[in-house]
Amino acid sequence: MTGRANLPVFIEGYGPVTPWDSAAFPLTKPRAPRAGRTPRRTKTLLAALENSGLQNGGTLSFHHHLRDGDGLMVETLKTCARIGLRDLHIAPSSIFPCHAGLVPLIEQGVVTRITTSYINGPVADAVRAGKLATPVVLQTHGGRAAAIEDGRLLINVAMIGAPGVDAEGNLTGAVGRSACGPLGYAMVDAGHAAHVIAVADMPDQSLPRICIPAKRVDQIVKVDSLGDASKIASGTTARAPGPEGEKIAAMTARLIAVTELRKPGFSFQTGAGGTSIAVAKKLAPLMAERGVVGDFACGGITAPLVDMQQAGLFRELRDVQAFDQAAVQSYATDMSHLGISASDYASPARSDAIAHRLGAVVLGAAEVDREMNINVTTTSDGRIIGGSGGHSDVASGAHLTIVTTSLRSKTGPKIVRDVLHRTTPGASIDAVVTEAGVTLTGQKWSHAAQDLEDAGVPFLSPHQLFDRYGDSQPRAWPEGRILAVSEYRDGRVIDVIRAN
Amino acid sequence: MTGRANLPVFIEGYGPVTPWDSAAFPLTKPRAPRAGRTPRRTKTLLAALENSGLQNGGTLSFHHHLRDGDGLMVETLKTCARIGLRDLHIAPSSIFPCHAGLVPLIEQGVVTRITTSYINGPVADAVRAGKLATPVVLQTHGGRAAAIEDGRLLINVAMIGAPGVDAEGNLTGAVGRSACGPLGYAMVDAGHAAHVIAVADMPDQSLPRICIPAKRVDQIVKVDSLGDASKIASGTTARAPGPEGEKIAAMTARLIAVTELRKPGFSFQTGAGGTSIAVAKKLAPLMAERGVVGDFACGGITAPLVDMQQAGLFRELRDVQAFDQAAVQSYATDMSHLGISASDYASPARSDAIAHRLGAVVLGAAEVDREMNINVTTTSDGRIIGGSGGHSDVASGAHLTIVTTSLRSKTGPKIVRDVLHRTTPGASIDAVVTEAGVTLTGQKWSHAAQDLEDAGVPFLSPHQLFDRYGDSQPRAWPEGRILAVSEYRDGRVIDVIRAN
Repeated sequence: MTGRANLPVFIEGYGPVTPWDSAAFPLTKPRAPRAGRTPRRTKTLLAALENSGLQNGGTLSFHHHLRDGDGLMVETLKTCARIGLRDLHIAPSSIFPCHAGLVPLIEQGVVTRITTSYINGPVADAVRAGKLATPVVLQTHGGRAAAIEDGRLLINVAMIGAPGVDAEGNLTGAVGRSACGPLGYAMVDAGHAAHVIAVADMPDQSLPRICIPAKRVDQIVKVDSLGDASKIASGTTARAPGPEGEKIAAMTARLIAVTELRKPGFSFQTGAGGTSIAVAKKLAPLMAERGVVGDFACGGITAPLVDMQQAGLFRELRDVQAFDQAAVQSYATDMSHLGISASDYASPARSDAIAHRLGAVVLGAAEVDREMNINVTTTSDGRIIGGSGGHSDVASGAHLTIVTTSLRSKTGPKIVRDVLHRTTPGASIDAVVTEAGVTLTGQKWSHAAQDLEDAGVPFLSPHQLFDRYGDSQPRAWPEGRILAVSEYRDGRVIDVIRAN
Repeated sequence: MTGRANLPVFIEGYGPVTPWDSAAFPLTKPRAPRAGRTPRRTKTLLAALENSGLQNGGTLSFHHHLRDGDGLMVETLKTCARIGLRDLHIAPSSIFPCHAGLVPLIEQGVVTRITTSYINGPVADAVRAGKLATPVVLQTHGGRAAAIEDGRLLINVAMIGAPGVDAEGNLTGAVGRSACGPLGYAMVDAGHAAHVIAVADMPDQSLPRICIPAKRVDQIVKVDSLGDASKIASGTTARAPGPEGEKIAAMTARLIAVTELRKPGFSFQTGAGGTSIAVAKKLAPLMAERGVVGDFACGGITAPLVDMQQAGLFRELRDVQAFDQAAVQSYATDMSHLGISASDYASPARSDAIAHRLGAVVLGAAEVDREMNINVTTTSDGRIIGGSGGHSDVASGAHLTIVTTSLRSKTGPKIVRDVLHRTTPGASIDAVVTEAGVTLTGQKWSHAAQDLEDAGVPFLSPHQLFDRYGDSQPRAWPEGRILAVSEYRDGRVIDVIRAN
């Protein structure tokens, strides 16, 4: 027995498994955030960690608003090592190549557990190589927020890199030399961690807007640098699309134009990849032409969405995380560019989350399979390259969920019989757009087919897509030790990553 | 072999069968409407029918805006019989108890084929008794419009009961003693029939608004009466809900409040049944409280929706058919009460149809099964009581499709193992609300569960609903001759009705 169907009932280092299925799975109520503290100033990171009461085996959380420019997580954990702490559980919202310095700390046993929503680079490779003592737990952005808010993920110490801190101890990401936009992920951690350490490279500024109030902060530490904010736009957020990506983007914009754009209160999210950016740029003139004023664009915010909002095409931006400097600037100056927490954005326990009110979303894929399951966690040959992030959250919540992907990667077909790893279930996907055309996954959007044809957009049934471009080879499932456990947004286990 | 799986490939009197499945099924493009005619006045219905060129075997269409008060269809077909016409195919948008006079015409062979979207009363009973020579074809409202517009349903003569006709020959349903609101179904027929006969009981009025322009009308005939407009609000549109219905309505309004009402551009449709009306009444204060101004309410329009629009809770009404006199009055006087055609409303071939932009819809059910398939066509014991009407159209198009039903009818459980007749496929249904609580059919709306619990609304999984309240008896499928063929909105066959 191999493959996804064969989930164990208990995973060593993880615990009992509740397998995901397609039925509704209600979550318990978020706890109210902790408050009522007065932040004190501490001279060094080392002293702050000592003051925090962190012990061996404790849980430290981090956020990734500086993305591949973050310097705080490695610095903090090196300091933990100096204090002699071991066996730590880290719960960063994401892990990037800049976190390579974690690898020796994993090897030394300083870090033995990781819970995160996205993992890419040397740390991912170290996990794949079996260096972590326990399986990585991969959550979604919304799933992480819900788990923190309802107490399934308990944080002893939340580390908050704060580009701006005022005299009272309020925190922001809007200004400072490490300005990174709204501190959407950290907002949740600050509300529920037993202890909150804010780390600042430019304390005592006056703040144009506040992300986290002082009453949720225990200590404030000054450091020389939080990292390199110029690297916020990096990795998937920096690539320009090729001609194939441009073609896919044009078809995607057309699909949106004949579906969600026709509905009142249009709202939109797109990622930071090249094709996503190109979709936004092609959608803008279609909106302008029709005089559509969308209600909001949300998610990770990029320059094209800022441009669209400034051109009056969206009333508001709802931003959990800035993806580039244009978004950072806009958040600092434009009051209709709203910061939201990861819980506001996508908590599966909250019916008022933005993801649940979203019209159209454009997402990517490393692999797509016959059941329209999407893999954004691994490559076809098993390298760990990410995780859901917000993928399954918005895929589930949006009315029209579009996945764009080229038919092939450098190494082979991306349309496969079974995805190696199921990040997002196929039932969440409404359309797949490749350079071959638009595939609608069910009858829900049949009515768009004629308009697409009129616009010269090729239309493929799922069967045609898989027959013509798919790899029908049965998957050789790895059977080794479980290296990572993927939780669906509701905390149930949707897949695992095994060693070969 | 019995049951739904066993559709024949060919049905005598119907033709080859394309079975429905869940894949997308693109339809061909609507033809442009015919125009360029100048209506002439004809003295009698008999003369008009003779002038029309109608022959034996021809197709006559009718519309049901007077609902159970319609006098035109029976009068027209009696006149056809007097001329000696036989073997006619009638394509009324619906058939009501008032059409009992059709039964002798069916028995005499004047009418041998029926294509309609809803059939109830003596004609339905006659079909069940095997009196019609060929199977009735049951379409959806949107499916009928698409079939007329793309040429699958060819109409020789469209009969249009026109409460208002002006000197030029323009038609309206807004005014006159038979005023019935917008002529949404007839608009489609008038655009595509080979010949159009408008029948008026008050010609040469001045019209506040036009439903069908004179250029689409060939003849205008004056008659004494089109029927009894006081019976528009009849049948399902007239019943008051009992305490159980009130309870179901309250839970349904709460479900909408924590889901679609939170999205920008709220839009809403509800039927004319007692529970539906009660939902609208309970939703109104929730909208007012939150300051929600919805974009539109649509569908068959009822007094509570008119009240909500007049109270500023919706910007517009988009009305294919008035369900009561309040709606008729409002259409005559309020310019934000817009008339739409059945094609504008729900054509599966049109991505801009209102049904495809709809937020929340509340629908009814005669039976619900394990796969959430809905039967609104027959009773559990096989009596024909309706058909889809717009049920599957809006169920497919709306973002949140709610079915409300009591757990039991007078004769037995309504929650069954397999619906006797599948009108609307389970994949279109998001929630079922019964007096036992709210059942969400998949994970899409999981996030609402906590808010429902907070509001004291019981929450049942599909398994709980069926285990506690369902009838697990296997169905004894009738195996006799096929009496009716149900087409899904795209024209594929989704089920048949067989004689016992």
